[in-house]
Amino acid sequence: MSLRDQFCPDIARLLADDCWLVAEERYDSTQNLAYESLFTLASGAMGNRGSHEEGFVKKTLPANYVHGVFDRSEAFMRELCNTPDWAKLHILFECEPIGVEDGEPLDYLRVLDMRHGFLAKRYVSRAADGRETRIESLKFLSRAHPRCGAFRIYITPLNYEGVIELENIIDATVTNFMDMPRFKVRHLETTEVSALMPDGCYVGSKTRDFGLRLGTGARVQVRGAQGECRVKSRRFRPFGEVACEFIDCDTARNETLILEKTACVCTERDFSDPRAQVTLELNELTERGFDGELSAHIAAYDTLWAMADIQIDGDAAMQHALRFNIFHLMSTPAPNDPRTNIGAKMIHGEEYGGHTYWDTELFVLPFFTYVFPGIARNLVTYRYLLLDKARENAVKNGYRGAKYPWESADTGDEECPAWTVCPDGSCYRCYVADYEHHVTAAVSYGMRQYANVTGDDGFMDTMGLEVLLETARFWVSRMTYNQEKDRYEILQVTGPDEWHEPVDNNAYTNRLAQWNIEYALAYLAEYRTREPDACQRLCKKLALTKDELQDWQLHAQKLYAGARQGLIEQFDGYFDLPDAVITEWDDNGMPLMPALFRGKRGIERCILKQADVVMLMYLLPHDYDMETQSANFNYYEQRTLHRSSLSPSIHCLLGLRVGDDKRAYAYLERSAYVDVHNNQGNTREGLHAASAGGTWQCVTLGFCGMGIGHDGGLEFSPKLPDCWSRVRFRIVWRGTPLTVTVTHAGVTVQTDGEPVCYRVDGQAMVSGG
Amino acid sequence: MSLRDQFCPDIARLLADDCWLVAEERYDSTQNLAYESLFTLASGAMGNRGSHEEGFVKKTLPANYVHGVFDRSEAFMRELCNTPDWAKLHILFECEPIGVEDGEPLDYLRVLDMRHGFLAKRYVSRAADGRETRIESLKFLSRAHPRCGAFRIYITPLNYEGVIELENIIDATVTNFMDMPRFKVRHLETTEVSALMPDGCYVGSKTRDFGLRLGTGARVQVRGAQGECRVKSRRFRPFGEVACEFIDCDTARNETLILEKTACVCTERDFSDPRAQVTLELNELTERGFDGELSAHIAAYDTLWAMADIQIDGDAAMQHALRFNIFHLMSTPAPNDPRTNIGAKMIHGEEYGGHTYWDTELFVLPFFTYVFPGIARNLVTYRYLLLDKARENAVKNGYRGAKYPWESADTGDEECPAWTVCPDGSCYRCYVADYEHHVTAAVSYGMRQYANVTGDDGFMDTMGLEVLLETARFWVSRMTYNQEKDRYEILQVTGPDEWHEPVDNNAYTNRLAQWNIEYALAYLAEYRTREPDACQRLCKKLALTKDELQDWQLHAQKLYAGARQGLIEQFDGYFDLPDAVITEWDDNGMPLMPALFRGKRGIERCILKQADVVMLMYLLPHDYDMETQSANFNYYEQRTLHRSSLSPSIHCLLGLRVGDDKRAYAYLERSAYVDVHNNQGNTREGLHAASAGGTWQCVTLGFCGMGIGHDGGLEFSPKLPDCWSRVRFRIVWRGTPLTVTVTHAGVTVQTDGEPVCYRVDGQAMVSGG
Repeated sequence: MSLRDQFCPDIARLLADDCWLVAEERYDSTQNLAYESLFTLASGAMGNRGSHEEGFVKKTLPANYVHGVFDRSEAFMRELCNTPDWAKLHILFECEPIGVEDGEPLDYLRVLDMRHGFLAKRYVSRAADGRETRIESLKFLSRAHPRCGAFRIYITPLNYEGVIELENIIDATVTNFMDMPRFKVRHLETTEVSALMPDGCYVGSKTRDFGLRLGTGARVQVRGAQGECRVKSRRFRPFGEVACEFIDCDTARNETLILEKTACVCTERDFSDPRAQVTLELNELTERGFDGELSAHIAAYDTLWAMADIQIDGDAAMQHALRFNIFHLMSTPAPNDPRTNIGAKMIHGEEYGGHTYWDTELFVLPFFTYVFPGIARNLVTYRYLLLDKARENAVKNGYRGAKYPWESADTGDEECPAWTVCPDGSCYRCYVADYEHHVTAAVSYGMRQYANVTGDDGFMDTMGLEVLLETARFWVSRMTYNQEKDRYEILQVTGPDEWHEPVDNNAYTNRLAQWNIEYALAYLAEYRTREPDACQRLCKKLALTKDELQDWQLHAQKLYAGARQGLIEQFDGYFDLPDAVITEWDDNGMPLMPALFRGKRGIERCILKQADVVMLMYLLPHDYDMETQSANFNYYEQRTLHRSSLSPSIHCLLGLRVGDDKRAYAYLERSAYVDVHNNQGNTREGLHAASAGGTWQCVTLGFCGMGIGHDGGLEFSPKLPDCWSRVRFRIVWRGTPLTVTVTHAGVTVQTDGEPVCYRVDGQAMVSGG
Repeated sequence: MSLRDQFCPDIARLLADDCWLVAEERYDSTQNLAYESLFTLASGAMGNRGSHEEGFVKKTLPANYVHGVFDRSEAFMRELCNTPDWAKLHILFECEPIGVEDGEPLDYLRVLDMRHGFLAKRYVSRAADGRETRIESLKFLSRAHPRCGAFRIYITPLNYEGVIELENIIDATVTNFMDMPRFKVRHLETTEVSALMPDGCYVGSKTRDFGLRLGTGARVQVRGAQGECRVKSRRFRPFGEVACEFIDCDTARNETLILEKTACVCTERDFSDPRAQVTLELNELTERGFDGELSAHIAAYDTLWAMADIQIDGDAAMQHALRFNIFHLMSTPAPNDPRTNIGAKMIHGEEYGGHTYWDTELFVLPFFTYVFPGIARNLVTYRYLLLDKARENAVKNGYRGAKYPWESADTGDEECPAWTVCPDGSCYRCYVADYEHHVTAAVSYGMRQYANVTGDDGFMDTMGLEVLLETARFWVSRMTYNQEKDRYEILQVTGPDEWHEPVDNNAYTNRLAQWNIEYALAYLAEYRTREPDACQRLCKKLALTKDELQDWQLHAQKLYAGARQGLIEQFDGYFDLPDAVITEWDDNGMPLMPALFRGKRGIERCILKQADVVMLMYLLPHDYDMETQSANFNYYEQRTLHRSSLSPSIHCLLGLRVGDDKRAYAYLERSAYVDVHNNQGNTREGLHAASAGGTWQCVTLGFCGMGIGHDGGLEFSPKLPDCWSRVRFRIVWRGTPLTVTVTHAGVTVQTDGEPVCYRVDGQAMVSGG
């Protein structure tokens, strides 16, 4: 029987084909936290983890994260705050809870419908006294009204009847890191716990540091299967920081009770009176009704998928995983809010504080740039809006220009702590913020990519260029002149490979710094020609003189940025480290540390966490000839353990480019399944944004060979795996939506149904701009 | 192996012989709530339920009740408040909790040492990853410093080592009726969550209605088995209403870590600055040390048991149950606080709101009167202190004098609600407070008993007499004159048997009302002779004229109070009800409703919940000849279902008196085992004070035949069960401690080792006061 057909008709008629579902087919409490991440729903305004609405579950991390709501308090850094839990609705019979852990859960099945963006669940709870209750539910966070969430629960007492008791709860006792006492922090203060009119609960909160107010409201409607009233009584009561509406409902044996809970979360970021806005939105939601809202929500996902879906024929498992990654990635960002970005764990968990890393620009942004350019614009604008903080950050560190923080939250301050704490309580000095400067080049790189693909010169002229210039200025100030060698160097720096920290002249960092300056100068020159007045105003604003620009030129030219041919040394002295290559892999195909090095420190061995040079070549394909790229890929791949989830996708991509693609599909699998299979064991903490974005890149920019040619035009050089008979997806190339179809025979690119260009030799091209 | 020998030497050396232990030999979460009641510890200032200190338990009702801390808020009545939970100490390893429900609990054993008043526990927690941790613990509420509680936990990581994480918690999110959403009420507001100096947690609270402030503080000390420091770091953090001190401890494989948590709860009832007092007491407690405090605590129980123990030779099970009842009963009341009393569920649960009923005077008070006359004085003084409220209560109901409330909390207001709610949410009109007036006579009766046994005329003269007079005045105002029969009557009243509600001329109520007036007049007459001036002052205070007293006399004489011989009708018309006797008993020996009556309302059948006439005769033994008592016992016993836990003990007692003792031992068992065997299924809600006191009465006043003779002297007419070879106990008779030894051969009564009197015919007598 299909998954869909195991649900009641009401839910089954909404569910997509099984290929669109992610299923939890057996209740195993040890897997709860991972499923809570996998089943997190995100509306663009907030993310709500897939915990069980009925509650009374022991291992659970219910959470509702709201874009832009950060707080530090006692934490090491500003963290995306866990806000009051509105997704709770206790169900009891004679004080005995009914839930997945109360009695036996029989015929358990929970699915995420990625096509329509909702969670559905069914099981029969068998209590110790033999009472059996069928529970079915459906939950969504409305993409039509993204501050609203809702769920419906069908309760059927199968072999008993009587009064079912409900608790409509908003629980404001939540903290971040609830199950990790060492890291547990309370970020919100509860300012109000009250009843809504005519019914429902409300909790007012404010962040402890900045006092940002937010409001959470929730209402519950109950009816019988025929729509008849089933509420006997309803009563609001506050319990400290828990708002609770107690509701009595009549039930009859084998008749279904339908509960609908609707909730709304508003913050002072958008509304001066969160309570009034919550009330208004809940009233409007009640007006539209659950089904009305759900239809609008599904229609919104129709629109999203119409743009974002990638159809892979011949590989159901990869098709499924790819959609999983796309689903969560596209659901996460705020469509209209450039003040927020995408966290390393998306909005699906609180690990890494909900912070934005270089992951955004180099892993996640390409997807949005090609598929949702409006969101991509927000993501790059976010960096522009925080440019002043990046300037401050440069000055604080003794540099000039703008240095973007390694970890960025709402303020743009550096959120990466200098000292950090291990799970066992030991502290260590964390040098990432001190040494890992390449994020600043990534910000510039992301803007160029964005501009190249979208053709959004307006962004570059008014925002991007200023960032390019200030980051270039940073890099210039970051260099040291080596008299002896008459060259500039970047000393004491860490590249993406954090196992060698810090090093001198990291090839990745140096070359991207150089690129950053070169590109800034080039763009400025072009801009000066095109918009001389505006350019002059900008230079004046930045106090940018001809002399300084010449000095930049000199620095860029004389910066030692590694060889352009042959084997490139990852950093000064890397080739002198004790060497050994990987010869063993674990059962999952993960490379194992050569025996020689076990127990050694990172700096004492050649083995990499992730490969800087491979990444560099992936980013600057036209800088290195294919032979060089191939040689370096081959060399470094044998020395890379892929202990970062960012690593496999890049190895897939460069491997495909250089034709060393024997592991490309395996790398894709590692990237695509990182959360679906929880293969890093940390899915409980949220989903991996970078590997989701990397997975998309592997399929489109890797196997389908899409890319930007030397001349700036769109190019394809596909290398489909044998088992893929066809790949089909949509992009927006400089404002024009295109449908791309890739087969082993070649590539078709269509716009509004008209093929633009078709080449059987696998080299399709759409001319640039 | 004995229970004791299953513990580590540190605990084993403290534990009493197994016969003093109540054991939970297997962890079964469905039994948690019952064991929490059985294992409640009470210090005289507070009661703390036997929940697991390590927490993370699903079915649990942790609670700390403090004498005199009541609040109503949204409840139907003022309730004894659940105060912040200080008895929590989370233990984790790498964020994984260690507790009875985390992994498998192996070799689980928990015992209540009744001899020494502490709880001890041991088990090995085996985690999913194979880690095994031995947990042993010992908890007590100090009788030496009754506002303080403490527990020690021995943690031994058996097959691993590393950093153990602790959370020293005071959780102020507690409510009453935590697991019953319909009845759940928050009684306290949290006013402060802060750190103590130099370490520890503090929570300030106040009751929501009256704003009574209380403070709860707790500190944790950690050391290795050799006393060495094991704390790596310590940090306080507030989480809303949860105070939490996070502590890192170093452990080594198979080495024991010793945690000691000490706590203190002070209220504004006793201290103007609860926080200062909590700090002071915790500092002093730290000074004395855990072992010092424990020794003082055990010494206090030595003293208590020296007075209260009853040794029954030949009946180990009954010996055990009797001690269980005595242990909890004597542990409950505040030794020095006449503003508080004993709740129907002692201080072991929140059912019945912690309220005082007639259970105090007629069931519980005899134990204290004979064994701890100082506490008995508090219990009767409590009623005197609330006399003004009883006066108000009379006026409110249209009467004169003083009418004691059916349920009494701190204020003395009637706390029994007019409307009450069933578990299924339906409401019903509760007439108990309207009709069940006999509690007012019980208050007077208790005072007489107290005075007779203790010879405390001072109490009677300064407090008791005023109560006697005002209650007499109430009864007079409560009567109606029946012209036709030229008699006074009490109409629309409910006796102890609540299945017939309301009735006219309830024999129990009428006769006790009459007795109340008679006794008040007699005492007044005697007092007038002895203390004419004081008597006159009292009469003036009460505006009591000779005319009114004559009127009382007339009312008492002319009150219809049932026959004095023959079969006494429980109320007007009782003998006209359809009749049937009990012919069937269930497997537990509980009588079953005759088939004829099943489905009928109480008022439509002769069957009783508990027997009023039997109770009446038990209370006034000299009013009815033995033949009458016997005939009535025989008649009513056949019609009583004992659906109140108050019923069996009285039937044991009267049965023994009238020589119809074939069921006496079975009644004793029913009374003695009500909680130990949870035979009413409601032990989760607290322990049954009345049956505990009734059990004591059965043994001493029943089987050992102790009583007050017609002349006011102490009498014995023992009827030991065959299997009891000897019973030995201590009482205080009018200030003189006596040791009573009862065997089948007769009774010995000794004072300070000297036999006072010895009779082989079973009729021993000590002449009165």
